[in-house]
Amino acid sequence: MQRTLLTFITLLAASLTFAQTRPLQGFDQAAAARELNLEAQFDSHLDAKHIDTLIRTLSARPHHVGSPGDKANTELISGLLKSWGFDVKVETFTVLFPTPKERLLEMTAPSAYKAVLAEPPVAGDATSGQTSEQLPTYNCYSADGDVSGELVFVNYGIPEDYDRLERMGISVQGRIVLARYGHSWRGIKPKVAQEHGAIGCIIYSDPKDDGYYQGDVYPKGAYKNEYGVQRGSVLDMPIYPGDPLTPGIGATADAKRLNRKDAASLLKIPVLPISYHDAEPLLRALGGPVAPEEWRGALPITYHVGPGATRVHLRLAFNWDMRPVNDIIARLPGSEWPDEWVIRGNHYDAWVNGASDPLSGQAAMLEEARAIGELVKTGWRPKRTLIYCAWDGEEPGLIGSTEWVETHAEELQQKAVIYINTDDIGRGFLGVEGSHALEPFLNEVARDVVDPQTGISIADRRKARDLVAAEGNGQVKKELLAKKTFSIGALGSGSDYSPFIQHIGVPSCNIGFGGENGGGDYHSIYDSYDDYRRFKDPGFQYSWTLAKTTGRTTLRMADANLLPLDFKALYRTVNGYLNELIALTDQQREATAFKNQLIREGDFRHAADPTKNLLAPKQSPEVPYLDFSPLQNAMRDLDRSTDRVAATLSGSAGWNDQRFHHINEVLYKAEQRLLSDKGLPRRPWYRHAIYAPGFYTGYGVKTLPGIREAIEQGEWKEAQEQIAVVAGVLHAFSLWIDTTGSEP
Amino acid sequence: MQRTLLTFITLLAASLTFAQTRPLQGFDQAAAARELNLEAQFDSHLDAKHIDTLIRTLSARPHHVGSPGDKANTELISGLLKSWGFDVKVETFTVLFPTPKERLLEMTAPSAYKAVLAEPPVAGDATSGQTSEQLPTYNCYSADGDVSGELVFVNYGIPEDYDRLERMGISVQGRIVLARYGHSWRGIKPKVAQEHGAIGCIIYSDPKDDGYYQGDVYPKGAYKNEYGVQRGSVLDMPIYPGDPLTPGIGATADAKRLNRKDAASLLKIPVLPISYHDAEPLLRALGGPVAPEEWRGALPITYHVGPGATRVHLRLAFNWDMRPVNDIIARLPGSEWPDEWVIRGNHYDAWVNGASDPLSGQAAMLEEARAIGELVKTGWRPKRTLIYCAWDGEEPGLIGSTEWVETHAEELQQKAVIYINTDDIGRGFLGVEGSHALEPFLNEVARDVVDPQTGISIADRRKARDLVAAEGNGQVKKELLAKKTFSIGALGSGSDYSPFIQHIGVPSCNIGFGGENGGGDYHSIYDSYDDYRRFKDPGFQYSWTLAKTTGRTTLRMADANLLPLDFKALYRTVNGYLNELIALTDQQREATAFKNQLIREGDFRHAADPTKNLLAPKQSPEVPYLDFSPLQNAMRDLDRSTDRVAATLSGSAGWNDQRFHHINEVLYKAEQRLLSDKGLPRRPWYRHAIYAPGFYTGYGVKTLPGIREAIEQGEWKEAQEQIAVVAGVLHAFSLWIDTTGSEP
Repeated sequence: MQRTLLTFITLLAASLTFAQTRPLQGFDQAAAARELNLEAQFDSHLDAKHIDTLIRTLSARPHHVGSPGDKANTELISGLLKSWGFDVKVETFTVLFPTPKERLLEMTAPSAYKAVLAEPPVAGDATSGQTSEQLPTYNCYSADGDVSGELVFVNYGIPEDYDRLERMGISVQGRIVLARYGHSWRGIKPKVAQEHGAIGCIIYSDPKDDGYYQGDVYPKGAYKNEYGVQRGSVLDMPIYPGDPLTPGIGATADAKRLNRKDAASLLKIPVLPISYHDAEPLLRALGGPVAPEEWRGALPITYHVGPGATRVHLRLAFNWDMRPVNDIIARLPGSEWPDEWVIRGNHYDAWVNGASDPLSGQAAMLEEARAIGELVKTGWRPKRTLIYCAWDGEEPGLIGSTEWVETHAEELQQKAVIYINTDDIGRGFLGVEGSHALEPFLNEVARDVVDPQTGISIADRRKARDLVAAEGNGQVKKELLAKKTFSIGALGSGSDYSPFIQHIGVPSCNIGFGGENGGGDYHSIYDSYDDYRRFKDPGFQYSWTLAKTTGRTTLRMADANLLPLDFKALYRTVNGYLNELIALTDQQREATAFKNQLIREGDFRHAADPTKNLLAPKQSPEVPYLDFSPLQNAMRDLDRSTDRVAATLSGSAGWNDQRFHHINEVLYKAEQRLLSDKGLPRRPWYRHAIYAPGFYTGYGVKTLPGIREAIEQGEWKEAQEQIAVVAGVLHAFSLWIDTTGSEP
Repeated sequence: MQRTLLTFITLLAASLTFAQTRPLQGFDQAAAARELNLEAQFDSHLDAKHIDTLIRTLSARPHHVGSPGDKANTELISGLLKSWGFDVKVETFTVLFPTPKERLLEMTAPSAYKAVLAEPPVAGDATSGQTSEQLPTYNCYSADGDVSGELVFVNYGIPEDYDRLERMGISVQGRIVLARYGHSWRGIKPKVAQEHGAIGCIIYSDPKDDGYYQGDVYPKGAYKNEYGVQRGSVLDMPIYPGDPLTPGIGATADAKRLNRKDAASLLKIPVLPISYHDAEPLLRALGGPVAPEEWRGALPITYHVGPGATRVHLRLAFNWDMRPVNDIIARLPGSEWPDEWVIRGNHYDAWVNGASDPLSGQAAMLEEARAIGELVKTGWRPKRTLIYCAWDGEEPGLIGSTEWVETHAEELQQKAVIYINTDDIGRGFLGVEGSHALEPFLNEVARDVVDPQTGISIADRRKARDLVAAEGNGQVKKELLAKKTFSIGALGSGSDYSPFIQHIGVPSCNIGFGGENGGGDYHSIYDSYDDYRRFKDPGFQYSWTLAKTTGRTTLRMADANLLPLDFKALYRTVNGYLNELIALTDQQREATAFKNQLIREGDFRHAADPTKNLLAPKQSPEVPYLDFSPLQNAMRDLDRSTDRVAATLSGSAGWNDQRFHHINEVLYKAEQRLLSDKGLPRRPWYRHAIYAPGFYTGYGVKTLPGIREAIEQGEWKEAQEQIAVVAGVLHAFSLWIDTTGSEP
């Protein structure tokens, strides 16, 4: 027994030693031990109860842009950050923020129905009755309009849905479309409707997507009840985010502004979101063909496409006011490299009470800042400057972050080492997107954080989920089991990292949790404290875990001698994208040839039900062979450069501070070399050659976007041009990182 | 202009000459020309108006087994066939056919609901009000029972659904299950429920499967209205079809019968089919976990699995009567080979009025027989004997055909050249299943029949649909475009071909049309003349086209000098099945190893939502390597034998009648060599080694069933044994067809 105990103690000691000495990228062994010790102290200051209190307090009343609640939160958050030792500044921008003046939707034929357009208070939800302060249900940046016309159901309202409508011989020209939420960012739906000549757009939440089909509805369960409505912006953010009147520049008091009619990100047609209670009578009355199977939702009706007897009248008018957007910027100066900035951000404005979106992330960030304040009290200081940003105006269009980035672009490109973003989160699995050079580092962070439900690391839980999903999809590959890391996603849009990465090339990441927090509260009055604590993150365990995760990310980035950016990881991922594009082009060539032949031979006509008048698709131009060699050569050179960088960095043991500073500057500014001078075709605000939100997906990322979207749209000349642009960018990147080998 | 006209006439003449001389398998050039001329005459006698009258007349009242309507139709059909010159005999069997005495389904908790269990008459449907003659909604061969218990929703009620229930920790032991129609033959649902210890089974039609989700409901559209119920048999037909009391022998008056309790095809638990009107209150009241996404239907509720507060009481009692089943057998003796029989069949009994099922096929067969009677009037006689069979008792379990085949098995194995089946059909595409040696022949038949909607051949329309479906699935393969024929399916069960092919090895095929005749009338009172003419086959164009198709099939089989059976086609298809099985085993081995490793490493546990208590799956035994070489060698020998047969047949020009008779006998009896002596494991009635209905799919075919089902069930020893059995069968087949080379 003694012997067993001894063995146990020996093992325990060994494991403690291991814990203290496990390697950290960018730290030598002694520094890693100190860092891990610091993180243990940091963890000891984090308390889920504080997060509970923060979410409850900050969600106590509606707090959209320009509201009294928003103002109160600005003061509350600023005061807290100040009290924790940060140097706090509120930066105010003045931006266009329309709110509803008049909203009317009625069916005028074949029967009369006037839409309710309101979410009722429900029992057990303390804030759902704050009617006087709630923003009505609307889509921000809808145009004013008073239109009447036949209704057409367009499914998700994405381009492929219009291809299908064309085959059915149905035009939306001069008509009003009814689209359902989902499968794209909402702003894509009215944009595509407008492109096709629609005069108005209604967007409803089908119960299949986040209502009773998914689970019990609120307040019994988390899913959307019949009156729930998703508010949200329909700014054309894939063109540019931020204040629509000041693209590319900060919306400061004296900024030169566009006329509203000249703002390219503003829609020309009226758009209104509605509940499924309001959508059902309209859909039920529709005539025309039965909707294709993949278009059908969960309402107890036969879905028809229209048009037919259903006519609707939509009248919308807005107060086109200029409102303040107040970003809270809190600094903690670095002790060694104060001009290298580690930036951490989360927005604090909401559509209504926003317990989940954004406060689940905001509260975690504040708790993280408080714990860092506690560390400072012990005499510790970060080596690099920490900047905590609580963004305002994210909901209408990433406005607070975009205007701040545009205002400080030059300084940020000099000093910003990384931008670490969070937003709404909930119970479940770690999700990470970011600059691909950060993948090994973020895996290392996730290795060191424990999942509160299972007791294993959040990295291991994430990997388990990926493996089980692969198993479910029939991807039974031994390579998957052998892989020790998880892949991080590419950044599209949808939160405040967008201006940092896509406009000015600051290495960025977005960290969250979710997958077990499903519900229908998003952008409704039911995104409340009561909903959140019951269904989204009981015990606030995942906001607490998020604070540990982003806290480690922040602390390690602040203190690492050598910034943990791994360009070999970037190379591998981008090389994967390139191979994917080559394969995509080949597949598209083969598929187009096959389909064209079927069209020519009449097979679509013969296979169609003659009573349904489904037209054969049109022939597509054949897909040429593209010359990918400039990119392939650029990738070969990048591979070699990353080898040289790795060799250089492996000799860092004897470096002095100046050498570290030189190398680190090369490392963190390298991402800027991935920007192209002209930006993407038709949207120069987006300058990153590797990542962009899709022109027709909205939030969804497109990698190698200039080339990929040209291929998807069949613009072969542009695809070839973009291959040259990206090859040039990658060449410049390789030359840049080669300078790590030169003396400072 | 004259020149153009001349060219036109020349081309026309050439095309007529071509039409007259296009080759027909089994006919020399002169005989082919005569045959095509005969078929033109045959076509000229077919009239869609006759089919209209036949369907209307025969569906004028309910005509289930033993009913006055059934008896009236027996007389009517017999009389018609006699009047057309056939020698008609009615063969009567006496079989167990239960009908409802008492039906009660009520929910007793959490609230009270008593199920309606009735389909109301609807406006515009002339026969829907014949309440006194309609069979109530029930599942034939349900057990008597009076059970109460908690309700569990089991999705489609197939084995994989119970695997999922097990992971949810939910047992059906001592409970009543609620399954939805679809994804298996209905009889599988209570059988699997019973295997899992359920005490009762309710089967409902979810609106997602054939109700409003699919299209407008009856009488506005073709789909199931809220009260529609699918009747149908739940006999365990995968064990044996036909009268449950006389397996393997004809149910003649003096047959030795089993006691009812000893009949292996009879269920032990009560089963009742209900409408979605009756299912909704039960489903709505269910507690327990939310149903997995793929389990959810289209009712406007959150689907839960149960158990929970929902308790139901199910009381069913039946009249277990013996009833007559009257097969109508009509002969036209052959002029040259009267002892070679071409058998054509379609059932005439229905669950209610049965305009579609079975009269759409029955009327086509009768019109075909009438046209043949017209040919006979001109002095023509078939070379082989034609036998037209109108089967009774198909609905309760293929009873009429099975009892007839069992009674005449020995003579049929001597004389039956082919059995050609049809059943309910409708507007759309040709569908053919059959003995694979018939594939080239059936393609040739389909080449020569014109589709009434498109004007191209039914073969070309079918191929167009296959190509467009492939395009939709992303299967863009040049081979597909190069393929000049369509594949015929393998025969499972579900109609009267089953005893011919699977029990006694008569070459068989099943021919139909459909795909544009969707609706919810199946086995309900709404399968009526009014429903049929409006939605299923307006103008009766496809029953008319069916008569042309099966008429050609019958006439060519009757008159061909050399029977058009192509064993190379059989070889190719079976070789495909073998390769598929080898690949299946390899995939299953890899998938099992992968899944087992994930289970061992805890990935399923870690990936699961802890609040949902989803258990990890159990580890499966690893998949060994099987020895497929006996089958591979048998296939190699078969390949060579089929080459020799082809060489022999190519020299047929100088043969005398005796030689033809010898060869033809070898050809048509070859299918019997594919029967195994012992039949399939645990179901010796099924003797065909290549085709059988699945033990757990019901109608759905399993090819190489002995091996495939053993692999699917993880019975490795049995799989290896069955490889030897099938190899033996194929070896015997090769030896048999080698006898074509010997002198008679």
